[in-house]
Amino acid sequence: MPLVCLTDFEVQAREQLSKTSWDFINGGADEGITREDNIAAFKKIRLRPRYLRDVSEVDTRTTILGEEISAPIGISPTGFHTIACPDGEMSTARAAQAAGVCYITSTFASCSFEDIVAAAPGGLRWFQLYVQSDQQLNKQLVQRVESLGFKALVVTVDAPVVGNRRHDIRNGLDLKRNLMLTDLRSPGERNSIPSLQTSAPSPYFSWNDLSWFQSLTRLPIILKGILTKEDAELAVKHNVQGIVVSNHGGRQLDEVPSSIDALTEVVTAVNGKLEVYLDGGVRTGNDVLKALALGAKCVFLGRPILWGLACKGEHGVRDVLNILKNELHTSMALTGCRSIAEINRNLIQFSRL
Amino acid sequence: MPLVCLTDFEVQAREQLSKTSWDFINGGADEGITREDNIAAFKKIRLRPRYLRDVSEVDTRTTILGEEISAPIGISPTGFHTIACPDGEMSTARAAQAAGVCYITSTFASCSFEDIVAAAPGGLRWFQLYVQSDQQLNKQLVQRVESLGFKALVVTVDAPVVGNRRHDIRNGLDLKRNLMLTDLRSPGERNSIPSLQTSAPSPYFSWNDLSWFQSLTRLPIILKGILTKEDAELAVKHNVQGIVVSNHGGRQLDEVPSSIDALTEVVTAVNGKLEVYLDGGVRTGNDVLKALALGAKCVFLGRPILWGLACKGEHGVRDVLNILKNELHTSMALTGCRSIAEINRNLIQFSRL
Amino acid sequence: MPLVCLTDFEVQAREQLSKTSWDFINGGADEGITREDNIAAFKKIRLRPRYLRDVSEVDTRTTILGEEISAPIGISPTGFHTIACPDGEMSTARAAQAAGVCYITSTFASCSFEDIVAAAPGGLRWFQLYVQSDQQLNKQLVQRVESLGFKALVVTVDAPVVGNRRHDIRNGLDLKRNLMLTDLRSPGERNSIPSLQTSAPSPYFSWNDLSWFQSLTRLPIILKGILTKEDAELAVKHNVQGIVVSNHGGRQLDEVPSSIDALTEVVTAVNGKLEVYLDGGVRTGNDVLKALALGAKCVFLGRPILWGLACKGEHGVRDVLNILKNELHTSMALTGCRSIAEINRNLIQFSRL
Amino acid sequence: MPLVCLTDFEVQAREQLSKTSWDFINGGADEGITREDNIAAFKKIRLRPRYLRDVSEVDTRTTILGEEISAPIGISPTGFHTIACPDGEMSTARAAQAAGVCYITSTFASCSFEDIVAAAPGGLRWFQLYVQSDQQLNKQLVQRVESLGFKALVVTVDAPVVGNRRHDIRNGLDLKRNLMLTDLRSPGERNSIPSLQTSAPSPYFSWNDLSWFQSLTRLPIILKGILTKEDAELAVKHNVQGIVVSNHGGRQLDEVPSSIDALTEVVTAVNGKLEVYLDGGVRTGNDVLKALALGAKCVFLGRPILWGLACKGEHGVRDVLNILKNELHTSMALTGCRSIAEINRNLIQFSRL
Repeated sequence: MPLVCLTDFEVQAREQLSKTSWDFINGGADEGITREDNIAAFKKIRLRPRYLRDVSEVDTRTTILGEEISAPIGISPTGFHTIACPDGEMSTARAAQAAGVCYITSTFASCSFEDIVAAAPGGLRWFQLYVQSDQQLNKQLVQRVESLGFKALVVTVDAPVVGNRRHDIRNGLDLKRNLMLTDLRSPGERNSIPSLQTSAPSPYFSWNDLSWFQSLTRLPIILKGILTKEDAELAVKHNVQGIVVSNHGGRQLDEVPSSIDALTEVVTAVNGKLEVYLDGGVRTGNDVLKALALGAKCVFLGRPILWGLACKGEHGVRDVLNILKNELHTSMALTGCRSIAEINRNLIQFSRL
Repeated sequence: MPLVCLTDFEVQAREQLSKTSWDFINGGADEGITREDNIAAFKKIRLRPRYLRDVSEVDTRTTILGEEISAPIGISPTGFHTIACPDGEMSTARAAQAAGVCYITSTFASCSFEDIVAAAPGGLRWFQLYVQSDQQLNKQLVQRVESLGFKALVVTVDAPVVGNRRHDIRNGLDLKRNLMLTDLRSPGERNSIPSLQTSAPSPYFSWNDLSWFQSLTRLPIILKGILTKEDAELAVKHNVQGIVVSNHGGRQLDEVPSSIDALTEVVTAVNGKLEVYLDGGVRTGNDVLKALALGAKCVFLGRPILWGLACKGEHGVRDVLNILKNELHTSMALTGCRSIAEINRNLIQFSRL
Repeated sequence: MPLVCLTDFEVQAREQLSKTSWDFINGGADEGITREDNIAAFKKIRLRPRYLRDVSEVDTRTTILGEEISAPIGISPTGFHTIACPDGEMSTARAAQAAGVCYITSTFASCSFEDIVAAAPGGLRWFQLYVQSDQQLNKQLVQRVESLGFKALVVTVDAPVVGNRRHDIRNGLDLKRNLMLTDLRSPGERNSIPSLQTSAPSPYFSWNDLSWFQSLTRLPIILKGILTKEDAELAVKHNVQGIVVSNHGGRQLDEVPSSIDALTEVVTAVNGKLEVYLDGGVRTGNDVLKALALGAKCVFLGRPILWGLACKGEHGVRDVLNILKNELHTSMALTGCRSIAEINRNLIQFSRL
Repeated sequence: MPLVCLTDFEVQAREQLSKTSWDFINGGADEGITREDNIAAFKKIRLRPRYLRDVSEVDTRTTILGEEISAPIGISPTGFHTIACPDGEMSTARAAQAAGVCYITSTFASCSFEDIVAAAPGGLRWFQLYVQSDQQLNKQLVQRVESLGFKALVVTVDAPVVGNRRHDIRNGLDLKRNLMLTDLRSPGERNSIPSLQTSAPSPYFSWNDLSWFQSLTRLPIILKGILTKEDAELAVKHNVQGIVVSNHGGRQLDEVPSSIDALTEVVTAVNGKLEVYLDGGVRTGNDVLKALALGAKCVFLGRPILWGLACKGEHGVRDVLNILKNELHTSMALTGCRSIAEINRNLIQFSRL
């Protein structure tokens, strides 16, 4: 069957993966309510199209933290890409470079950061950090990725403890004890998590610790997982450079707001003082357009990238990114937006149904 | 089984048509959300009936752009009627004439415009134009239909690029490249699209080009596909004669508002300065009544006409139109409306459920 | 299976009746939306119970137009009871008398009015009139029922033409031509409709004709089918004694408001100047309580009476009425209402779900 | 299958119990609407998480009426625990003591109160009283439980008559006549209800009778079943010490508000003058957090305790309580709440979906 949209990849990926791997990728925390809200909330928003504009030229290029990207679409950090295909994060990195988008590499990458960089030396990459309880380890990680050319530090804030993922417990995956069980390893994996010397994220990490990180590196710092105006205001106050509005794909605390519902609150609070991104629930070009119209500078994709990897490796990720870029192009043309700058709040109408 | 309502025709048409043809007719863009909203939004509206009026005489006649029609119901432009029955648009034209309603003939008719006119010389017809990139072709088309007696030019504005119809891509129909694939042709078709010398709609067409069309023809111009107050105000400013509130049956940009939801915004914006029509989701006499109560002068039907053609050819279209007219007659009697002029906003209550 | 609630009777009645009879009783107009809303709208309302009141004595008695009834529950007019059981309306009349409630007898009763009266001479009865185009026939009917001891004239206003009941058309029942087809007759029926000399309801009947009826009889006049404040105000102005808020069980115009949704608008408009009743969707004691809390003086039941007849004849109707009375008794005790007078608007909260 | 959440226990308990016992435990009154609302209403509430707080120490301890408990979770009164496991309430008492939570023992316990106390002498227990029509019996019951060390009297106010539970009637359980039918008794039960000398709850009991109870005992009095601000204000005026916002698990009057919907109204009305608790619909740690954020001091569980008993006896109840405590711990950590005192209204956002 041809893969014509991102959910086609979802269906096929499910067939390719073991149940344990599928559940690990697909599942949410507790009852999976936020995981489903992420999708459903986008579907409640209607677009107000403007016509009779010359849309013979539509340009999807934009920038994030000053770097040009081919479209306001990127790759959110997810761990253990070798679950989905043998080359793991190296494939992901190559596809991201080819598509001209940013790839946020996870602390829990299953390839070494050096291999990932070597696979796609020209790509734009940010590094996602799970802050470790061991400060020395934090320092080593940050300096290592800075020297490897990663352009920003994306600090995850929504995982001081691991969320309650019922399916993983049922499948015998105890993420609180052992982050890389045999079942999640593909035969061809080249790196093992222990070599990363990481452990569970630190529950101690707080606003006061941010300045230590800022003293440690010249990389811009982005906080991933902020969902409230209160935390957004604190982020501005602590001089970070960006926020990813995210609920960790519904995998940490269930029943928090969907990403797109939380976006407006955060965008309003930061009032342009830093860049706001979003992940969670983006599946179509319309979703990208809606997030941008509500104030996001760029959106990031988690599970769809793993679907692409599982279906066709590097080429699958390229297909996923290209489908989404093409859909965004069509959505912009059909709403009368010729450039990213023309996308604004007037495009949005909340559904009356 | 007797065909007692429009959805009975839908069920039977599905059985008559090949999967590819059915999908082409039935499908919407992307996830089909707007396509479903078109129906669902009508069902959210309640009617406030008035009783104890003498309704022994109920008159459904009205006018559009000064021409009398037997009821505020017409035929929206859809392409390639030979998919549904051998005589294609000639059957449609005969049925429209018999029913005393307006038939908006599509640029992508599969019969020649001359044959359509000859089949039902006394019928009221408007011509739907997909503006072509080649201005000479536009000029030829407009002058040809004006000389054939079409009474208005209905310019589609919501298709500067073709919408993303997943089902057609899966079925191998690539509308961006080849608008008339073999699979869509019936054995008996008499005209082929290439003879029309049309190509894909123009992405360049903009408000500034309208005056050129106005200089080219004395036909009134109607813009089809307007969904916002901003564009409605521009339509007034550019001196067009009418607007069809439409989302192209949910086939162009998904997740735009349903037609009936967008109607009020457009009606309010034009403030009586031009006529407003609607297509999308009309399936019952109550739907017609609701659209008129909210300010439409006439509604138009797309898919139900093709269902009628597929089930019983010309007679099927006549049945579809007559069922709808009878239902409207009953709905008017049971709400106390003896003429189209008595239909107004007081009939409407939005559902509390 | 024991029949413990009204919907148990529905399930069993469906098994007892032919498809044509079941569809005739059960069906609504067009898409059946209002028919379903009648039930669903009650389910959206929440009750605010008050406790720690002495509810050892709960009295459900009340009056309608000055006549005492055992509970604010009665029988709405429905035609052709011999469809459901051989003794038809005679069984209904006996059950109503035994339960101490009012029975509104239909113009289209399948037993003669004389037989109905003879079957239960002590019962409270009102007569439902479909106004006939022949004034002489109206006069005969009104004077006949007045002399037979009927206590009020319930004039149906929502049927100037017959609603569009798709199932009846599919089943070959053409109510517009022949109101009593063979298929609807039970073998043992004793009276035939032609002997009633009635024909289709009059589409001419209007507010101006009311005074002629008022001059003809001393019976109080109740208008059945009013759904709007405008018509309620006209009813007050024309000096009628009551209104039944009703949508004809969803059998006339589809997509009008549910009865319970329309009730508040009508109650507010009449401002105590006449009694307001309700039919449509009442299935539980809670439903009765809600209607009274929102201003109804009494509710009437249509389909559930026919279910009772179909299941167990006269005893079935008695069971239906007794179940509902017992449920109302429990609902009153559990909300702290010891008498009908204590039921008021404070009991009501619209659902937040 | 591992039992990882409370609903896993529900599924397994259903397999363990006879249909009659399951229906008795599981069922609600009438149509079961409030029973379902109790669950659904929690799911409509979203949590606003705060991050970057040091959550290395999360303390779930709190107090109710001055007594420390390990978490704001307790056991609601339900009758006849020997239905679910042979040791009945003795198992429940042992599990509650082990978990450090309060166990509200029911008037209809199937073990003697003396045996229950002996089974877990160190546990915190309150006594639930169905007020009896015989005042002497009330006096004996109250003095007996006070001397046995129960710390509060939880007076049920929402059962002056028994609710209408269709399933029990269908199953032949007539609670109005015989509260302990053979089918509900397990072979090993040691006490029978008649020895308790209780009968049906009193319909006479009213606000005026409260002072008699207050003169009879020094135990604090808690009213269970209050759902309105009016009754909450009367509770304050009558000097009771607590309110359990409850709808009896949807088993008394159907279509009253869900517990969590009624909570805010009651909390606002009492304005801190007494403690407010909640039962009904609590199934996850998030539910506990939401109830506390909206003003509850503690929540209580009904059916889940019986599921635990049915699955694994005492150990099942311990598992149920521990799962919920662990989930609450995670939910607090992931919203930034390090103590019960830090839980407040700012955590709450009502769903926009």
